[in-house]
Amino acid sequence: MSQVLNYLITARRCEAEELQRLAHTCQLVLTVGKLIHCLQQERGLSNIYLGSRGERDAQAWQERVAASQAAQCEFDTWLGSTVPDNALSNGARLYTRIAFALHALDGLPKLRADVAALACTPAASYERFKTVVGALLALVFEAADVAVDPQISRLLVALFNLMQGKEFAGRERAAGAAAFVTGKITREQEQTIETQIEMQEQALRRFESFAEGFRNEWSAMQATLPLADLERLRRKLLTAHGRPLDPELADAWYQCCSTRMDGLHRVEIHLAQYVQSQCQDKIRELQKDLDHQGQFFTQADDRDPLASLTAFASGLDGQPLPDGSLSAGVGPHLTQSIVDILRTQSERLQNLTQELATVRESLEERKLIERAKGVLMMKQGLNEEAAYRLLRKHAMNQNRRIAEVAQAILSLTEILPDA
Amino acid sequence: MSQVLNYLITARRCEAEELQRLAHTCQLVLTVGKLIHCLQQERGLSNIYLGSRGERDAQAWQERVAASQAAQCEFDTWLGSTVPDNALSNGARLYTRIAFALHALDGLPKLRADVAALACTPAASYERFKTVVGALLALVFEAADVAVDPQISRLLVALFNLMQGKEFAGRERAAGAAAFVTGKITREQEQTIETQIEMQEQALRRFESFAEGFRNEWSAMQATLPLADLERLRRKLLTAHGRPLDPELADAWYQCCSTRMDGLHRVEIHLAQYVQSQCQDKIRELQKDLDHQGQFFTQADDRDPLASLTAFASGLDGQPLPDGSLSAGVGPHLTQSIVDILRTQSERLQNLTQELATVRESLEERKLIERAKGVLMMKQGLNEEAAYRLLRKHAMNQNRRIAEVAQAILSLTEILPDA
Repeated sequence: MSQVLNYLITARRCEAEELQRLAHTCQLVLTVGKLIHCLQQERGLSNIYLGSRGERDAQAWQERVAASQAAQCEFDTWLGSTVPDNALSNGARLYTRIAFALHALDGLPKLRADVAALACTPAASYERFKTVVGALLALVFEAADVAVDPQISRLLVALFNLMQGKEFAGRERAAGAAAFVTGKITREQEQTIETQIEMQEQALRRFESFAEGFRNEWSAMQATLPLADLERLRRKLLTAHGRPLDPELADAWYQCCSTRMDGLHRVEIHLAQYVQSQCQDKIRELQKDLDHQGQFFTQADDRDPLASLTAFASGLDGQPLPDGSLSAGVGPHLTQSIVDILRTQSERLQNLTQELATVRESLEERKLIERAKGVLMMKQGLNEEAAYRLLRKHAMNQNRRIAEVAQAILSLTEILPDA
Repeated sequence: MSQVLNYLITARRCEAEELQRLAHTCQLVLTVGKLIHCLQQERGLSNIYLGSRGERDAQAWQERVAASQAAQCEFDTWLGSTVPDNALSNGARLYTRIAFALHALDGLPKLRADVAALACTPAASYERFKTVVGALLALVFEAADVAVDPQISRLLVALFNLMQGKEFAGRERAAGAAAFVTGKITREQEQTIETQIEMQEQALRRFESFAEGFRNEWSAMQATLPLADLERLRRKLLTAHGRPLDPELADAWYQCCSTRMDGLHRVEIHLAQYVQSQCQDKIRELQKDLDHQGQFFTQADDRDPLASLTAFASGLDGQPLPDGSLSAGVGPHLTQSIVDILRTQSERLQNLTQELATVRESLEERKLIERAKGVLMMKQGLNEEAAYRLLRKHAMNQNRRIAEVAQAILSLTEILPDA
């Protein structure tokens, strides 16, 4: 019997180790989130600097560069301090994303030199920064796609969506600033900004729906944000219909958007720390169970294993059934029987697996949509916002879900015409 | 750039390690398969021994017991030789199943003592053996549910279905033998045997559909089996309609079924060995790639990372797109660029993940059905065959898939009345 308990304990230890890896992965997400936030700020100031031909915010721009470099240093240090292989959940795919992100980050020195020399347009600089942020977000997405604990997975999915929503907010900030500065907005720019707003609202709704236990903090944070100002400025921006925009509003727009993004970043940090603390709580709980189970080494359980197992085994799943009947007929016990422990553990893992499947389904949908957008961007020469609008239009016309349309597009990738 | 390659290589190494764990898991499946085969033989002879009140096959029965004990020793040795934690795929759930199986195996000494003393009925002995085999099969099922490589996963699913089909064949052998020996068969026994035949045919069909590259061996093996004899005996058994059966046919039935089960066991061994060799092949292939990628440490790639990434990045997925355009415009190269390597690896992992999702879906369905059967067995006091018939009947009446009905039953578990 002690061998049975040994394996039950090994199973628990495996779970605890998985959670440990997950807690470690959360640190990665925190570090990457900070780097993304810095790069978003640098991206914004680079655009102002380039747009003013080096006249405006040179000092602030340099400070932002330094802050990004420091954040990248932290990321590098974190990577350096992590012994590879089994330290992170989801090894192969996550490490591939890290390689991707590092490769994109390798492009920053040249990008900054171009900005400093005023050797690229604001639009080109913006696109290049977007690529770096995209590679880092892809890393966070992969980190969220882990099969360990459904509650933690849900929080990681919430976190990823929060970060994605914040990136769309950043793009809206850039696109709106460009319009205000030039004093005019085209129909195409309007459409892009409308889509960016829609995409960030969707991402934040997904964040809300996955971030149980975190909604109060979210509401409290939102109350501190200049949302009315933002909506007023959005209205001015999107209802100009050919009339000139007031360039004086550019600063107010930028400040308002930035304040909101800083707020989102604070929620992001709290959420990541909350996920870490949840991991630690669960590890402690497992440890408590382990200590408790250890007691059974000294206790005899001389009932016939097959008598209890046979009566309640449930087919090939080998899983006894979810009620207390196993102890029926043997009277109240102060201690659980070994079958009770086996049953509890087995059920718990089974439930975790099923809940996880649900969370992963929503992740798979996100992946499909992202990939289909990528195909449309490539094949039709669209930007991300236009690709998304095309997907949504098809979905509405065909009365199908966007993920279904995405799936159909991916299955046609080979035969779609190039732009 | 060398850091990028370092992480690409780490990702590959993670993959290779996962495959190593999988190869190790295959050994477990082989060992468990052998133990199951021995227990199925012992179960059959125990029934003959008990049914004849100790008159028949006493010697053969003792030999079978010894063989089972030797196979269990091998299983124990295998477990003892495996350093826990990271040695097996799918740690927590697999170890829980091992604990379950060991607990069931702990019941064998008492069961054997009962058989030796003729202290239990053939039916009771049979049920207790079935529980042990069920716990071992559940272990194999868990081992098959790994998220590493879709081709390997498909083969493991095939292997599990083969073993499950063989177990249903074993139950048919027992039920048929009991009927022939007593010279009569009830309507209920007939139904049970019909369901056992249906369940084994389904499992073997699933085996065939998942065992690509193994179908020729399967056909060849089937050609050596006494399938015509089996069908003839099945016909006699199932069309008696109240007329007496010829007890003289009991031996022929038993031999015929046993020959078939031995054949299935041989295919099972070959398939498990084939899976192991496939793992090794894939590990070698990864190793070759790793050696190849190492060369890039010495090669400069001075193109701007963001120029190539930005042009072809596909949304947040950060994944460049599936054609050769990345090298367009830079002329033919003898070496791949770093972006090409990143792209290839990223695509490969993405495809693996999608294919795996499909395989896992079918596993999830099996789990649902097994669990729903378990609930019906418990709540309605049915045996496995009757539970399956009830599921199938509901599915036909409602024109739904069995997995859907299973899901509906599971969601009603709490409110289903007890038997």
